[in-house]
Amino acid sequence: MKKVVVMGGGTGNFTVLRGLKKHSVDLSAIVSMADDGGSTGILRDELGVLPPGDVRQCLVALSDSSRLMRSVVNYRFENGGLEGHSMGNLLLSALEKVTGSFERAVEEMGRILFIKGKVIPVTANKVRLRMVLKNRKILEGEKEIYLSQEIDQGYDKIYLDPLPESNPNAICEIKNADMVILGPGGLHTSIIPNLLVGGVSKALKESNAKKMFVVNLMNRKGQTTGYKATDYLEEIVRYLGEDIFDYILVNNQTPEQELIDKYAEEGELIENDLVGSRVISAPLLGSISKKVENDFLLQRSLIRHNSTQVTKEIMKIVDYL
Amino acid sequence: MKKVVVMGGGTGNFTVLRGLKKHSVDLSAIVSMADDGGSTGILRDELGVLPPGDVRQCLVALSDSSRLMRSVVNYRFENGGLEGHSMGNLLLSALEKVTGSFERAVEEMGRILFIKGKVIPVTANKVRLRMVLKNRKILEGEKEIYLSQEIDQGYDKIYLDPLPESNPNAICEIKNADMVILGPGGLHTSIIPNLLVGGVSKALKESNAKKMFVVNLMNRKGQTTGYKATDYLEEIVRYLGEDIFDYILVNNQTPEQELIDKYAEEGELIENDLVGSRVISAPLLGSISKKVENDFLLQRSLIRHNSTQVTKEIMKIVDYL
Repeated sequence: MKKVVVMGGGTGNFTVLRGLKKHSVDLSAIVSMADDGGSTGILRDELGVLPPGDVRQCLVALSDSSRLMRSVVNYRFENGGLEGHSMGNLLLSALEKVTGSFERAVEEMGRILFIKGKVIPVTANKVRLRMVLKNRKILEGEKEIYLSQEIDQGYDKIYLDPLPESNPNAICEIKNADMVILGPGGLHTSIIPNLLVGGVSKALKESNAKKMFVVNLMNRKGQTTGYKATDYLEEIVRYLGEDIFDYILVNNQTPEQELIDKYAEEGELIENDLVGSRVISAPLLGSISKKVENDFLLQRSLIRHNSTQVTKEIMKIVDYL
Repeated sequence: MKKVVVMGGGTGNFTVLRGLKKHSVDLSAIVSMADDGGSTGILRDELGVLPPGDVRQCLVALSDSSRLMRSVVNYRFENGGLEGHSMGNLLLSALEKVTGSFERAVEEMGRILFIKGKVIPVTANKVRLRMVLKNRKILEGEKEIYLSQEIDQGYDKIYLDPLPESNPNAICEIKNADMVILGPGGLHTSIIPNLLVGGVSKALKESNAKKMFVVNLMNRKGQTTGYKATDYLEEIVRYLGEDIFDYILVNNQTPEQELIDKYAEEGELIENDLVGSRVISAPLLGSISKKVENDFLLQRSLIRHNSTQVTKEIMKIVDYL
């Protein structure tokens, strides 16, 4: 069975993992530990735990448990002192407290959710993501970076504080992989934070795995306004040290104008200016079904990757490795 | 397989269930829904859920899952907005919110914890336990009753508000049981609240099951000061309408004087003044082991029932039914 490693954090990861779960591959998700918003941020501050949010999403994506169980793990309390907390975040944090190890907590949660594959935190260190903008302003934490509307004015530096050591299991997965997939996902908040962890870029360069970059669909206003596919690639390559990608997967499908208009406030479609034999251009858009509208993870953006389509393109390569 | 039903709530229940779980019986726990203290009270008030605390204890008692999983379900958060909440209470409440039914939540939690047997809330109604003291003071809620130091001055009335309907599954269990066990447990806070639910006393009287009452070990100061075994029996019989018990299990072992002295502030040993062939007098005390000292459920009182001893006496009867 081919070993496929998916790196990122957030909704993009969720889509790829959910699709690949249905195929016969040995699947691992390496997850950024920079999340500090919402329920996750409160748990970090109040309990001193590692951030459970992105890990929870990956666990749910890989889960073979009942729909009810997945709903409960994603359930958010709506009132009182618990307001906004996701049940899965609380369970991961309690497991971390009881076992004394976030990694063991994630493993145990994987058993509870009958996951297919593994979810591996990129580091076991407590880190804060920081970005220094060109105007000298410092953005503190992933949430602040995610919400900033000034990043496209340029930034000097993005870094994790303190500089974390990588989780040896994450490095091992990368080295033993047949294929590593980066993206889709927030450029500064989900993808780059993984590459800032000491040893990760080196492991990616040294690994014999085929490497694929899945380009996002939409730019985020104030963050990546006007970015084309090459801009994404270049920015990632800057943190990797070299262009390691054997494949680049881009969408070539145009959503309905109505949807584009609806999302104009959030951002615009990313134009593909990449060429060459490694560029796989395919229709990757999802259609909006009732079911999807009820899926909170996918509600944020209705212009989104279709899990099945993305997976199909990935599997065309994996099957010939 | 003989059907054994255990009624109550709280630590006493936990001891009996944990012991019976190891035997080949068809086990059900019927649990009072009057709990409103601590984490449970906050969840009731803030989320409008049914009280998870006593149910959680019964589920853990019947659980065949890993020690880690049981520890996580009993884990209490120590900081911030989550302080004092037990993980299992949160999970039960989230399950109730997602399924829309407390009973389904309990069933699902039973599956997660691989329980042996069933845990059945005595009612699906939201109720508040109230006690009117002889001095006209009204005690509001189980917690206030549990903490009161005036109950032994006499009370006029104890009732559930509003008068709840019984859970048909609870009635069915009682009617089909081979044996029903009441107690040990808080007289006013764990045992009587079950009997205040409409239809429960009637079902107990009509059931062909053998009925056993397990007498507590200690009186609680300000609550049952000076009570002897007959006083417990009489008070329960008052709510039942008649004396239904085929067996009464009482302890005949004296704890070390050191322990009695240590607990003098909380209460004194209950004297057994019951006689007759239905009275089973046996050594039922637990010894204090390191393991028990680490078990938060049993830390409250070091003079407590020994799960194995109590179960042995119960099984002597069950095996001959």
